[in-house]
Amino acid sequence: MRTRATDLFGIEYPIFAFSHCRDVVAAVSRAGGMGVLGALYFTPEELELELAWIDEHTGGRPYGVDVVMPAAYEGADLGDAGDLLARLQSMIPDGHRAFLEDLLARHGVEPSAGTAARTLLGWTDQTARPQVEVALRHPIALLASALGPPPADVVDRAHGRGVRVAGLASSARHARKQADAGVDLVVAQGTEAGGHTGDVSTMVLVPEVVDAVGAGTPVLAAGGIGRGRQMAAGLALGADGVWTGSIWLTVSEADTPGRVLPKLLAATSRDTVRSRAWTGKPARFLRTAWTDAWEGEGSPGCLPMPMQFMLVADALPRIARSGDGELVTFPVGQVVGSMDRVRPAARVVHELIEEYAEAVERLGGLTRS
Amino acid sequence: MRTRATDLFGIEYPIFAFSHCRDVVAAVSRAGGMGVLGALYFTPEELELELAWIDEHTGGRPYGVDVVMPAAYEGADLGDAGDLLARLQSMIPDGHRAFLEDLLARHGVEPSAGTAARTLLGWTDQTARPQVEVALRHPIALLASALGPPPADVVDRAHGRGVRVAGLASSARHARKQADAGVDLVVAQGTEAGGHTGDVSTMVLVPEVVDAVGAGTPVLAAGGIGRGRQMAAGLALGADGVWTGSIWLTVSEADTPGRVLPKLLAATSRDTVRSRAWTGKPARFLRTAWTDAWEGEGSPGCLPMPMQFMLVADALPRIARSGDGELVTFPVGQVVGSMDRVRPAARVVHELIEEYAEAVERLGGLTRS
Repeated sequence: MRTRATDLFGIEYPIFAFSHCRDVVAAVSRAGGMGVLGALYFTPEELELELAWIDEHTGGRPYGVDVVMPAAYEGADLGDAGDLLARLQSMIPDGHRAFLEDLLARHGVEPSAGTAARTLLGWTDQTARPQVEVALRHPIALLASALGPPPADVVDRAHGRGVRVAGLASSARHARKQADAGVDLVVAQGTEAGGHTGDVSTMVLVPEVVDAVGAGTPVLAAGGIGRGRQMAAGLALGADGVWTGSIWLTVSEADTPGRVLPKLLAATSRDTVRSRAWTGKPARFLRTAWTDAWEGEGSPGCLPMPMQFMLVADALPRIARSGDGELVTFPVGQVVGSMDRVRPAARVVHELIEEYAEAVERLGGLTRS
Repeated sequence: MRTRATDLFGIEYPIFAFSHCRDVVAAVSRAGGMGVLGALYFTPEELELELAWIDEHTGGRPYGVDVVMPAAYEGADLGDAGDLLARLQSMIPDGHRAFLEDLLARHGVEPSAGTAARTLLGWTDQTARPQVEVALRHPIALLASALGPPPADVVDRAHGRGVRVAGLASSARHARKQADAGVDLVVAQGTEAGGHTGDVSTMVLVPEVVDAVGAGTPVLAAGGIGRGRQMAAGLALGADGVWTGSIWLTVSEADTPGRVLPKLLAATSRDTVRSRAWTGKPARFLRTAWTDAWEGEGSPGCLPMPMQFMLVADALPRIARSGDGELVTFPVGQVVGSMDRVRPAARVVHELIEEYAEAVERLGGLTRS
């Protein structure tokens, strides 16, 4: 099939697969879609290794990298101050630390080794830029920015190297800003998506974004896209392709944690919740005792980004390996309800395309008869 | 065009238009879709008059009636007790009454004439049944049930008169229950819809419901359907038609209150909220000072259905005609963002079909090239 998105990258199918796992990224690109590696959790050195591996395993097919450069976060005004991390740490209230430790204890999670809150991840301009530098040294085809439009100089540098830029938007106004910032395509992401997400549904958002950015900027539909009928719906709404994420968590190649995978396979579409309990910004997660506790009675409330993650970062691996497992959660969208078996990524791509073709054929038949 | 839904009713377009306004119902049926009158706010006597008017103004085209027969509500176990209303009234806490009166006073709304909480509307089995009796005396083609499957005897009586039955469902499990209860079609309504709504988006819900009810039961997609691209998306998801509601609030024929209409025309897709502040069950409304107050700090919380409505019923007309207008709200879905001008209902139908055809044509072109 052929859309402006397939033309832009010379790919077979307009299926963009966001994943933090290099194996998934390479597998989707090899299958005719485009894998996009989420850089957030990697140090620049780690990212370098991941991308070198992907370069060797895509057979020359294009792939992308996704960074997080939020336009707004606590400490943004602290600029380049070397002590940004320490200053943000001092802003975390003791009550929040106590609430967290009590919650962990109640669920039998092993105590902290005292290494908490050492990280900002790539959640600030300061920490995301080195990731961009690494990414641009590799033959990437796409640089995506997950929160807010990428800074103008980043767009220019990417374009200078022939790299296309995509921005994620959860409202027509944000999409317009992204288009004005010079992105080559906009990902219109509905509230049903996993991870950071707005409150407008994909069904409502995509046509709004298509109209807002105008004919010059192709749009990818994101949120609630896990099967071919949903891909057909996304394109019917005016998109030139689909941006997917959740469905790659349960493919054979994925490195999804062992305590998470069975929860994903068992969950229904009603088992997610939009919560600030992981990163400080609203993001959709599997609803578990973790999200219930932070959103429920007795919670001190969630801290703003990036402090909420700084607070909980050290607890997450401990939750993943110890305790009763009830706190274990993971970012995932409402399509989790249809993720009920483990298949190779290439098979997911082919089943998407197969059902897509059936849906389009059926639609054509409704007006012909 | 032709789907199982158009075949079922002999209509031209699979567009079902829910409205509380008889003029809209008749106009959509005359334009080739199917108008469905929401009976909730009418006494049996009023409903009789409305349906007699519709019978005279549809030119023999089919139309439907929508009643609310919730499977669960406070007082359901009180059965046929004549004093159901009084007993429910006595269960409304004084704190809630005080919160309401204070809220109204702060916004300059005229005081109560002491007629509060006289109504249950059609929100109980006891009050909805007389509406069903009236409806079945008219040549209706469809009886729809908005909350939970209709009781078996109601389904049987409708079928005995050649009337098709539809049930609204916001989860695959509910849809399966409706199909088991013998409904002829299921309306799969996503969270973006106006009025009572679940938490799963249309994009995710429709394929789940289509698969859950099986090939024997056609599905209508509802929630977020306001234009032709969205109609195409709904059908791409596997539906045989679309169920729409919000978009008819701003047509020329609608009797939408004068203080509501400008708010609807000005609202964006981000200006709605899912709240229990009107009926006691989660429903999507225009976000205003009313929903903010009930959901915010200092709120005593919302009462269960039907008590929340009993509490606020008398205040709603007072809010509509007096005070600063900030409390004025209305049930509407996220498509309110695209409702920016007043057009005749027939033109809305034709523009839906026109854009639908363009979207299907474009989709076909993507795979042909």
